[in-house]
Amino acid sequence: MEVTQVLHMNGGSGETSYANNSLVQQKVICLTKGMREEAISSLYRSMLPRSLAVADLGCSSGPNTFFVISEAIKSVEKLCRELNHQSPEYQIYMNDLPGNDFNNIFKSLDSFKEKLCNEIIEAGHGIGSCFFNGVPGSFYGRIFPTKSLHFVHSSYSLMWLSKVPDGVENNKGNIYMASTSSLNVLKAYYEQYQKDFSLFLKCRAEEIVEGGRMVLTFLGRRSDDRSSKECCYIWELLAMALNDMVSKGIIKEEQMDTFNIPQYTPSPSEVKFEVQKEGSFSITSLEVTVVPWNAYDNGNAFDSECGLSKSLSNGGYNVTKCMRAVAEPLLVSHFGEAIIEEVFSRYQQILTERMSKEKTEFVNVTISMIRRA
Amino acid sequence: MEVTQVLHMNGGSGETSYANNSLVQQKVICLTKGMREEAISSLYRSMLPRSLAVADLGCSSGPNTFFVISEAIKSVEKLCRELNHQSPEYQIYMNDLPGNDFNNIFKSLDSFKEKLCNEIIEAGHGIGSCFFNGVPGSFYGRIFPTKSLHFVHSSYSLMWLSKVPDGVENNKGNIYMASTSSLNVLKAYYEQYQKDFSLFLKCRAEEIVEGGRMVLTFLGRRSDDRSSKECCYIWELLAMALNDMVSKGIIKEEQMDTFNIPQYTPSPSEVKFEVQKEGSFSITSLEVTVVPWNAYDNGNAFDSECGLSKSLSNGGYNVTKCMRAVAEPLLVSHFGEAIIEEVFSRYQQILTERMSKEKTEFVNVTISMIRRA
Repeated sequence: MEVTQVLHMNGGSGETSYANNSLVQQKVICLTKGMREEAISSLYRSMLPRSLAVADLGCSSGPNTFFVISEAIKSVEKLCRELNHQSPEYQIYMNDLPGNDFNNIFKSLDSFKEKLCNEIIEAGHGIGSCFFNGVPGSFYGRIFPTKSLHFVHSSYSLMWLSKVPDGVENNKGNIYMASTSSLNVLKAYYEQYQKDFSLFLKCRAEEIVEGGRMVLTFLGRRSDDRSSKECCYIWELLAMALNDMVSKGIIKEEQMDTFNIPQYTPSPSEVKFEVQKEGSFSITSLEVTVVPWNAYDNGNAFDSECGLSKSLSNGGYNVTKCMRAVAEPLLVSHFGEAIIEEVFSRYQQILTERMSKEKTEFVNVTISMIRRA
Repeated sequence: MEVTQVLHMNGGSGETSYANNSLVQQKVICLTKGMREEAISSLYRSMLPRSLAVADLGCSSGPNTFFVISEAIKSVEKLCRELNHQSPEYQIYMNDLPGNDFNNIFKSLDSFKEKLCNEIIEAGHGIGSCFFNGVPGSFYGRIFPTKSLHFVHSSYSLMWLSKVPDGVENNKGNIYMASTSSLNVLKAYYEQYQKDFSLFLKCRAEEIVEGGRMVLTFLGRRSDDRSSKECCYIWELLAMALNDMVSKGIIKEEQMDTFNIPQYTPSPSEVKFEVQKEGSFSITSLEVTVVPWNAYDNGNAFDSECGLSKSLSNGGYNVTKCMRAVAEPLLVSHFGEAIIEEVFSRYQQILTERMSKEKTEFVNVTISMIRRA
């Protein structure tokens, strides 16, 4: 499997699209708002750039794509007003792999811009010119010119590895690290994560100006145990659905045995370790947050102070659809289209049953950094 | 009709796609190669930029999209080798309206890069890093930061106006300027062109660095007569097909009377006049070229020295398909999907008949400019 060719969230704006099934990701972005605001404000105050280059890496396609950009621009415009400065020009870069639905982003750009302008004008501020760019390519490589970026953000993208680790052939019956995975599998996953994340840091270090800021959120874990339930259970339950279909002869055992999710969910100390080892960035904060799998199903109040789009909180959100929007292209590429409906129907049953009995949540690790001089 | 929402070439890579039906546009790009090479070479020699920003405006989606970029990079790499310089970083911006099929461009980016690298390495040169960006938006407005571009190119895009001119309500039975159009119609079209092109020049003047270069090719005309057959005939024949369908009751007369193509095909002196009036650019050359409508149908040798992709010269090229790839979205937006097959079937009959009797060609106006200090 060529991850850079295959990995992308479900495109478009239909029922199974990522755009309509990304509430968990939205909630996470909401929880980490404070860290981004601190970063972009102190960046602006210290550098006062005439042109401010902001990149969102792994932007996907949907309401979340514009949320962080919009928030960053609003923070800077507020500061400009306080400091009695002229607004900078904004150079906005939206990055994702080439299979991402950029057309969908670009088509909604005009209405996004209009909405943003109205909000900023209502708040009594002006707004600098915004120039939008789509940047297709893997962030595990250089994608921007040298010293061209001031602020880099990425949420729920960096747990995706550049490839399925080598040497996990014996991870049979599992599709990710699991409690029954051998030690060599856990080691292979960790080493791939180290390789990928250190390359990511090296590339960004070349692209970000001195004093520039970076805020990254991983789907992660708290525990030191790599096969901890808090990060692996969601995939173990998908493996359960697939194994049921193997036992029914719908999926070939060999197909199941050769499927592994190219993901790694690091702990805060693993993230910190790689950043310190690479050496180009100093850490300003490192936080862990949690979001329940059923973030919006069990009567949680809508997080209105975060200003997220209300429309998304209505209707049939469920964690199965969210996982489907994320994992469907990977599954289709390996198993073919035919099994998809049944996989997710089984997965939904399993998830519903487990969630009624257990406390289930996603753990998020967010790190904020400054590019050293 | 909101032109910025509606106008785009046919997407994808299917039978009616622009990607598979853009040989005329490719031929034109080929004819103007010399002017671009002169521009980019003298730009590089005079500025020696460490990072070279190149923009293709109205890039569309297909083989032509990458052709100009590839050629520009090759020219610079050749120069670097001659001058014994290190390669610059390339910042590549591919612009088109938000409805353009950017996904299609982005998906072919990796194979394009690979091909380019191989060609350059075969020629014994190195290659600097290339960073690709898709830039959605109308070029009749600012789309790039201030003084951020070195070289701007656009071919067969700037004849598209930002809107259908006001005051052409009496252009009944026609869909463009025609020999039977009233003077007020010709005047309205010309004034819209002046407004649009001068705004284009003003925006680019802000975005291009001093000494930066711009090479623009318009579908145009030689004659001073705005309703000259050399620029209007191709649309008059489409109007003929539509009028036949009006007389058969398939299209409502009122629908036909309210449809006008948002295009203007300027003469060399009209182009020159606007550039001189705006004042930010000095003209280095202004050339007229022609391409037969049936560029590849009548045994013309394949233009191999231009290095165009051979695959495109095979198979059923015809001018109807080329016009369909360009005009279909406009027609669908106004008349609906249902009539499309019949329109183009009739158009093809008319074109085939006329082309067998008359010499028919597209006239192209190309201008090369330097951003004044």
